[in-house]
Amino acid sequence: MRAVNVQPSRRVVLGGSAAAAIGGVFAGFGAGRATATASSSSAPQPTDAAHSPRFQPFHGKYQSGILSDPQAHAVFLGFNLPLDAMDRTESIEHIRSILKMLTADAQQLMSGRGVLADTEPEMSHAQSDLTVTVGVGQSILDVLGYKSSALGRLPEFKGEKLDARYGQSDLIIQCCAQDPTVLHHAVRALRKNLRGITELAFSQSGFMHAAQPVRPGPGFRNLFGQLDGINNPTGQARELAVFGDAQEPSWITGGTTLVLRRIEMNLDKWDEVDRAGRDFALGRRQSDGSPLSGTKSTDPVDLQALDASGLPAIAAHAHIARAKPETADEVLWRRGYNYHETQSSGLLFASYQREPARSFIPVQRRLAQVDALNEWITHVGSALYAILPGVAEGRYLGEEVFSQIKQ
Amino acid sequence: MRAVNVQPSRRVVLGGSAAAAIGGVFAGFGAGRATATASSSSAPQPTDAAHSPRFQPFHGKYQSGILSDPQAHAVFLGFNLPLDAMDRTESIEHIRSILKMLTADAQQLMSGRGVLADTEPEMSHAQSDLTVTVGVGQSILDVLGYKSSALGRLPEFKGEKLDARYGQSDLIIQCCAQDPTVLHHAVRALRKNLRGITELAFSQSGFMHAAQPVRPGPGFRNLFGQLDGINNPTGQARELAVFGDAQEPSWITGGTTLVLRRIEMNLDKWDEVDRAGRDFALGRRQSDGSPLSGTKSTDPVDLQALDASGLPAIAAHAHIARAKPETADEVLWRRGYNYHETQSSGLLFASYQREPARSFIPVQRRLAQVDALNEWITHVGSALYAILPGVAEGRYLGEEVFSQIKQ
Repeated sequence: MRAVNVQPSRRVVLGGSAAAAIGGVFAGFGAGRATATASSSSAPQPTDAAHSPRFQPFHGKYQSGILSDPQAHAVFLGFNLPLDAMDRTESIEHIRSILKMLTADAQQLMSGRGVLADTEPEMSHAQSDLTVTVGVGQSILDVLGYKSSALGRLPEFKGEKLDARYGQSDLIIQCCAQDPTVLHHAVRALRKNLRGITELAFSQSGFMHAAQPVRPGPGFRNLFGQLDGINNPTGQARELAVFGDAQEPSWITGGTTLVLRRIEMNLDKWDEVDRAGRDFALGRRQSDGSPLSGTKSTDPVDLQALDASGLPAIAAHAHIARAKPETADEVLWRRGYNYHETQSSGLLFASYQREPARSFIPVQRRLAQVDALNEWITHVGSALYAILPGVAEGRYLGEEVFSQIKQ
Repeated sequence: MRAVNVQPSRRVVLGGSAAAAIGGVFAGFGAGRATATASSSSAPQPTDAAHSPRFQPFHGKYQSGILSDPQAHAVFLGFNLPLDAMDRTESIEHIRSILKMLTADAQQLMSGRGVLADTEPEMSHAQSDLTVTVGVGQSILDVLGYKSSALGRLPEFKGEKLDARYGQSDLIIQCCAQDPTVLHHAVRALRKNLRGITELAFSQSGFMHAAQPVRPGPGFRNLFGQLDGINNPTGQARELAVFGDAQEPSWITGGTTLVLRRIEMNLDKWDEVDRAGRDFALGRRQSDGSPLSGTKSTDPVDLQALDASGLPAIAAHAHIARAKPETADEVLWRRGYNYHETQSSGLLFASYQREPARSFIPVQRRLAQVDALNEWITHVGSALYAILPGVAEGRYLGEEVFSQIKQ
């Protein structure tokens, strides 16, 4: 079995057992690359999950709210722009003015000062790891005439039952914070300033764990009780999966892409499944997240391993067998949240990756085809965004894109 | 001006300025008694808000989740029982079996072990200050033939627009935790075990701040941006307001009462009010919670104080002028939460008090009559519960009530 570097070439296509050796893949998926122990010095350090909440930097090489470990609470806001009502020049200026306003608002909120004309600036005073992360859909890139092979739109996947309320929007704002009241204010302040110049497409709220995680170790429990995120990439591997490198950046240097899927989970039906059935469907034990081919959550997913009766320890159609990355490119950084509403519960699956066509899309195609968990989950929302690069002092969000377009 | 003991006699009726001297009253209301510096040694210590989350005790003189500082998240579950379908003997046994089951479930969940036949016990493993607090409405006391002058039902108040979805139920379970995922599991586990033997009346979710409060000092900001809870009683004064003492206990020794009101707040209309108008309506400054008669949040509410132009610093119809306790009995312990749903935002006002007829009800009558804030708030939910005493090892919730009823 071949040894694997912490930063393998993207071009290495992995065979079966070699892929498994790289690391287990978790419920959810796409976290197969070995974990690096150090972060790139050029990048913001991923947030220590146990740190005291503070103000997160707005300026930097990357936007905040991406590489850091997830905060306790998130709201994903989708907006549409009245692009049909304007000619191209007007549309470009409209988009630019919105991004300039968001630059000011995000900077003010993240530094605890409230937005311009904020009626409750005090509500942003608390240090709460608030991050405001902005991206645009292909529709905006089209208007700007910005060519990129890395974005596009998500294809249809077998079995999904998409609800238009959670579909693709022109603009996405991911707001995260440790404190739900600080988050509520930030969301409201952003929405107020976008009123009249955009239309709200969706507001999807999610939660994870308390600000001070009460469970040691990575990941969180989703509403099926499964440990989610055990093998998410960390440090340098996370940065590489999300932003690429100088040779192979994402759609733009310093930018990345966000897949946002709303996955409804049928908790009542899941209740009827016993422990053995649950572990079998996932390929990992609910108790501690260990793969059925091992005994610890950090053990590799070994699809060759046999159980006592000589059968595969992990069934071929178990979720982790299907989700296992087949190439190093398939690694993505999952930063999703549980959601719960009166009529529906599930997962706001959110993943950052350099290029969805080589990561999220092939993995999701496999899962849509065969995945034992599909009996209990339904994908009802689907959207893909180009996340803008980080902003230097005095610049505005997306300025690099405008500088490259042909008028 | 008379000096006020930290534990004044309940019978002292306070005149205007003497009441003000006792301490400011805050948005929300009823927190006029001076703050004690030490807790009663016989009672569980109020939770230090900055402590690390842990398992809260189930057994004790009082139920947990009452005297402690509020956790970050709460769900209030209302249930109705099929009492009309049973004769009295059957009803009594039905109620007893539910309370016995809740005793077991609450004990299991609070100690991190999941309920009987729990499909995801792992989700309760995290130490998260989870508390499960149980109470009953007058309807249950009536069936049991338990006479008490302290409960009854809340009267109608002027201006309220009650929505039957948030009205009085037979049973209340207050679930609180620092971790929203742990809380989700607990709520689901409790609901599953009550299925078939009760009907869910409501599930109202609220939030406050992060598990590790990010703002120093007491209270939290409500969604109007006002500091709520500045002058809530602490320590011994809190315990006295909630449970009374040996001479004057609540409806039962070790028990108390819970008022649960759902107060819709019109944020859009509130946005139109400028700072001066906001401070004027409340009688306190939004900036730091200081009363308009003083400069610090801890300054007393002085209704005699005049401003530079010789007018009352706090208007007679300002919220805190109307809410100011007129007797020591009017002190209550507010443990409410913000709420936010797609169509409505506001406050889940929750207060614990020895006797609502002498505390919540007279104060709310005054506020319903005249309160400058009424222009922006609407009470849409109203319920009152008898919170059961704490449980000794080997006993069950409400056992004292059953032992006193006449069959």
